[in-house]
Amino acid sequence: MSVSTQTTALSGHSIIAGRQVVGTNGITRGIDPATNAELEPEYSLVSEDQLAEATAAAEEAVASFSALDPEAHAVFLETIAANIEVVGPELVERASTETGLPVPRLQGELARTTGQLRLFASVVRQGDHRGVRIEPALPERAPLPRPDLRQRKVPLGPVAVFGASNFPFAFSTAGGDTASALAAGCPVVFKAHNAHPGTGELVGRAITDAVAECGLHPGVFSLVYGPGASIGQALVKDPAIKAVGFTGSRGAGTSLMATAAARPEPIPVYAEMSSINPVFLFDSALRGDADEFARAYVTSLTGSSGQLCTNPGLLFVPAGAAGDAFLAAVDRALAGAEGATMLTPGIARSCQEGIDALAAQDGVEVVARGREGATANAPAPVVFGAQVPTFLANPVLQEEIFGASSLVIRYGSAEELVTAAARMEGQLTASLFLSEEDVDTAAPLLPVLERKVGRILANGWPTGVDVGDAMVHGGPFPATSDARTTSVGTLAIERFLRPVAYQNIPDALLPAPVQAANPWHLNRRVDGRIQLAATEGDQA
Amino acid sequence: MSVSTQTTALSGHSIIAGRQVVGTNGITRGIDPATNAELEPEYSLVSEDQLAEATAAAEEAVASFSALDPEAHAVFLETIAANIEVVGPELVERASTETGLPVPRLQGELARTTGQLRLFASVVRQGDHRGVRIEPALPERAPLPRPDLRQRKVPLGPVAVFGASNFPFAFSTAGGDTASALAAGCPVVFKAHNAHPGTGELVGRAITDAVAECGLHPGVFSLVYGPGASIGQALVKDPAIKAVGFTGSRGAGTSLMATAAARPEPIPVYAEMSSINPVFLFDSALRGDADEFARAYVTSLTGSSGQLCTNPGLLFVPAGAAGDAFLAAVDRALAGAEGATMLTPGIARSCQEGIDALAAQDGVEVVARGREGATANAPAPVVFGAQVPTFLANPVLQEEIFGASSLVIRYGSAEELVTAAARMEGQLTASLFLSEEDVDTAAPLLPVLERKVGRILANGWPTGVDVGDAMVHGGPFPATSDARTTSVGTLAIERFLRPVAYQNIPDALLPAPVQAANPWHLNRRVDGRIQLAATEGDQA
Repeated sequence: MSVSTQTTALSGHSIIAGRQVVGTNGITRGIDPATNAELEPEYSLVSEDQLAEATAAAEEAVASFSALDPEAHAVFLETIAANIEVVGPELVERASTETGLPVPRLQGELARTTGQLRLFASVVRQGDHRGVRIEPALPERAPLPRPDLRQRKVPLGPVAVFGASNFPFAFSTAGGDTASALAAGCPVVFKAHNAHPGTGELVGRAITDAVAECGLHPGVFSLVYGPGASIGQALVKDPAIKAVGFTGSRGAGTSLMATAAARPEPIPVYAEMSSINPVFLFDSALRGDADEFARAYVTSLTGSSGQLCTNPGLLFVPAGAAGDAFLAAVDRALAGAEGATMLTPGIARSCQEGIDALAAQDGVEVVARGREGATANAPAPVVFGAQVPTFLANPVLQEEIFGASSLVIRYGSAEELVTAAARMEGQLTASLFLSEEDVDTAAPLLPVLERKVGRILANGWPTGVDVGDAMVHGGPFPATSDARTTSVGTLAIERFLRPVAYQNIPDALLPAPVQAANPWHLNRRVDGRIQLAATEGDQA
Repeated sequence: MSVSTQTTALSGHSIIAGRQVVGTNGITRGIDPATNAELEPEYSLVSEDQLAEATAAAEEAVASFSALDPEAHAVFLETIAANIEVVGPELVERASTETGLPVPRLQGELARTTGQLRLFASVVRQGDHRGVRIEPALPERAPLPRPDLRQRKVPLGPVAVFGASNFPFAFSTAGGDTASALAAGCPVVFKAHNAHPGTGELVGRAITDAVAECGLHPGVFSLVYGPGASIGQALVKDPAIKAVGFTGSRGAGTSLMATAAARPEPIPVYAEMSSINPVFLFDSALRGDADEFARAYVTSLTGSSGQLCTNPGLLFVPAGAAGDAFLAAVDRALAGAEGATMLTPGIARSCQEGIDALAAQDGVEVVARGREGATANAPAPVVFGAQVPTFLANPVLQEEIFGASSLVIRYGSAEELVTAAARMEGQLTASLFLSEEDVDTAAPLLPVLERKVGRILANGWPTGVDVGDAMVHGGPFPATSDARTTSVGTLAIERFLRPVAYQNIPDALLPAPVQAANPWHLNRRVDGRIQLAATEGDQA
C-alpha cells in the first residue's frame, strides 16, 4: 500500500520501503508536554525482523540510487522539500503539540529544513563533492610509466539516522543528516523519534511520496518506530548499515559509538552530543548598556527553553565593577523570565536534576533565577556563578545541563581564560565579545579555542546556526564523535562518501564523473590542480 | 644531546624531541632473516614514562608547528628528503640486512619515499588541503542577516604512527603516514619497528636533523623503541595523541582500533591491514601467450617474497581449455621459482601456517609450487585451486596469507563473479584482465567492486602503487579501518585535518588562510564556488 501526503490522518505505523507496516513489538504514544496528556494515535513498534526488511530494502536501493544523474537526484531532494511544504501548517501544529515548542520557532525551523534540502540539491547539481581527481597516463615516465588514474567519491551505502527531540524538523526525519546522506546517494533508514511520532510520520510520508514521484527504488527511505534504545542498537548492528548519523545525548551517542566500533565491520558514527558553548566577555563588551546586553544573554539562554545544542551554558565575565553591574542586570532580566514547557517530562526532570547537582557544588552560587512556568515541565531558568579555580577543580561545572541553565565564571586575567579554555572538553562553539582594543588580549586564546571547538564567533551569541557552505556545527569529543566534519552545512555531505580509484579502466566502463568527456560538467582536479568545468556553452 | 646524520654509527637508542634517550625498559635487537643472526647494536626500549616525554613534547610543538607558513613547512619536508638521501646507500644496505629485501627493490622504495615527501611539500605549497570556504556577510538577508563565515582546516594534533615491516622506508619512519601527518601540521611520535631498528634510527635522525635545521620545535618528531605491543597500546591511549596511522596485520590493527575507541576521548585510527586483492580474468585475457601471462602473474605474486599489501592472493580464471592452459603455464612458471627470505622468522612461520591451513581445506588443491629458498625463512611459493562454490562456502579461503601464496578460483559465468565479489570482505584492489569485447560482461561487476575496494584496475597486476594525486590505497574493512580515505597519495593529508569555522571574527584575529587579503594565495570556495587564487603577478 502506498502512502500519500494527501492523506493527512496519522496512521500510527512505520513506513518501510514505501509500505505502511504495522509493528508487532508493542506501542508508544506521543504526549503533550505542556499537559502530560497522551496524544492520538498510538504508534505500533517494529520488531527486529521488521527492521531487517527496511535495511534489506535500503541495501537493494544502493545500486540504482547511487548511480542517479545529478539532475534527477537534485529534483528528488527538492520534491521532498515541496512535499513538506504542502503539509506545513499541519506539521507545525502537530510538532508544537508534541514538543511544546512555540509555533513561530517551528515555522522558522521548517523553513530552515526545506531550505537545507534545496541547498543540498544545489550541491548535488554543482558536483564538487564527487571529488574527481585525474592523472592522465604518462607512458614515457621513467623509471616506470604512469598509468591512467581517476578518482571519485562514492556513497558509503545505507545510513541509519537518529533524530533529536529538540529540532523535530531540522535535526529529525528530513533534517540535516537525512538530507546530506540522501544527497551523497545513501539510502536512509530513519529511527523515528518517539517524542514526536506524529511529526515524524508526516515528514516520513513527504519523503516516501517523493521517492515514489521520482520513480526511485522504495528502499531509498524507511521510517521505523521502535521500542526505546533496543531498536536503535539493532539498527546500528545491522550489517547493511554503513554509517550512522545521530543528534542527542552524550549517553545515547557514546552507546551507539561503542556498538558501531564493536561490529565485525566497524562503521563511522557521526554523533552530535554535548556542548556548553563557552562565551568570553572582554572588558570592552561591558561598556555599553548592561541591561540590553543582559537581556540578549537571557534571550539566548532561555529561547526554546534552553534546549539548543549551542545554548550559552558557560560565560566568562571579568571580575570588577563592570562585571558586577552586568550580573545585576542579568538578575533583573531573568527575574522577569518564566520557564517554558520542555520537550518531555524526562528532559525536564534531567534539567532539574542537573540544576540541583550544580547548586550543590562547593563554590557555586545562584546569581539569578526566573520563575517556573505555568504549564507542566517548565522549570525556572537559572544562572549560577563561580570563580576560575572552582571551575578548574571540579569537572561537574563542565557538564552540560540541557535546558535554561548557565554558569558565569568570574575571571581576573586573560591568562586565566587561556588556562580554562585549555582544560575544557570539546565544544561546538566558543564566543568572544570584544572590540578592536581587545584583539591583542584575545589573540592567545584563539589557537587554544581552535583545538577545542568547531566554530568561533565574535560579538554574537552561539544560538542560531546558519546553514551554508562555510558553517561548522561540529567539534572535538564530546561535542561530537568525529571532529573531522560538521552536521550542518554543505560539508556534511562528505561524511557519507569514500574515494575509489580507477586505474587504466576503459572509458566505456568508467562512471560518468571520471569519463574522458566529463558528461556531468564537473570541476575536476587534474595533476593536482583544479580545472573548472567548461560552462554548457563551451561544450563541444 | 643533538643527533646528526653525519654520525652514522648507530646508537641503539630512541630519539625523543631531538634528544637521544637511553630506554630503561629492556632491549631488543634486529636480526638478519637470511641467517637468523642477531645484529649490532642492541636497542634500548623506553618505559611508559619516557614515552610520555615524547607525547608531551609533541603536544608542546602543536602551536608553532601548526602555524608554520607554507614555504617553511614545505622546506622542512624537502629537508627530510634531502637528509635521507645523504645516508641513502648506508640505509639501503642496513635495510637489506634487516629485512632480507633485495637492494634494487629497496633503492626504488627509497626514491619513492623521498619523492613522497617532496610531493607533500608541493601539496603544502599549493594549499588546497586547507579547505578554505568563505561566505561573506549579507546584512540585508531576510528574515535574518547572514554573518561573515569563514572555514578552514586545522591539524588534529599529535599523531602516533606505526610502520610496516614490509616497507622499511615507504610505510615506516618517514613513510606515507609520517609524511602526510607532518604535511598536515601534526607532530609525529613514531613507534620504531623492531624488525628494522637500525633502518629506523637512520631515518629518524634524518627527520630529527631536519627539525633542527629548520628551527622547529623539537617535539615535532620523536622515534621510540619499545617492547612489543605494550608500548603501542600506551601510545594510542595517551591523551595527547589525536590520531593514529598504522600499517600491519589485521590482528594488531583491530587491537589498536579497539584501544582508540575505548579512550575517554575516542580518536580516529587509520589502519591499513588485510587484503587478498582479487584478480578477474575474462576470456580474452587468455588469448595471448599463456606462458608470458603466467610469468607476469608469478612475478607479481613472488616479488618481495609476496609480502606486499596488494599481492594478488585471489585469481578468478574461467573454466575450460584456455584456463587449463593458463594453469599449466603457471605450473611451469612457478616450478622454476625459489622462495626468497621473508622479513622475519615469525612472518615466515605465519606464512607457512597459512599455506598449511589452506591446503587442508576441502575442495582446495595445490595447482603449482616452487622451491624453498636456500636462505633461512624462505618458504616455497604456492598457488592453490578451488571452485566458486567452495570459495563461497568457506571463509578460510578469504583469509590473507601474507607471503607468496595465491588461490585460483575457476568460474563458469560472469554471474558467478558478481556473486563471489558481493560476498567478499573489503579489499585494497580488484583487477580485471579484459579487452573491449568483455566490457558488457564486466559491466555488472563494476558497481559491486566499487563497494568493496579502494582501487579497480584493468590489465595490470595490483602490485605497484603509484604515489600521486588520484591514487586510493584504502578500502572497506578489513582492508583498512576507515574506508573514507587513502594511505597513499595526496588525499592522505585529509586524514589529519578537521574544519573550524570563524563567524564575524575581526580580520586581525583570523589565521592567514581565511584573512581577507588571502596572503597565502589560496584557492578559496566563496559562496559555494571555487575561486582560483590570483597568481603572484596578479596580486595588488
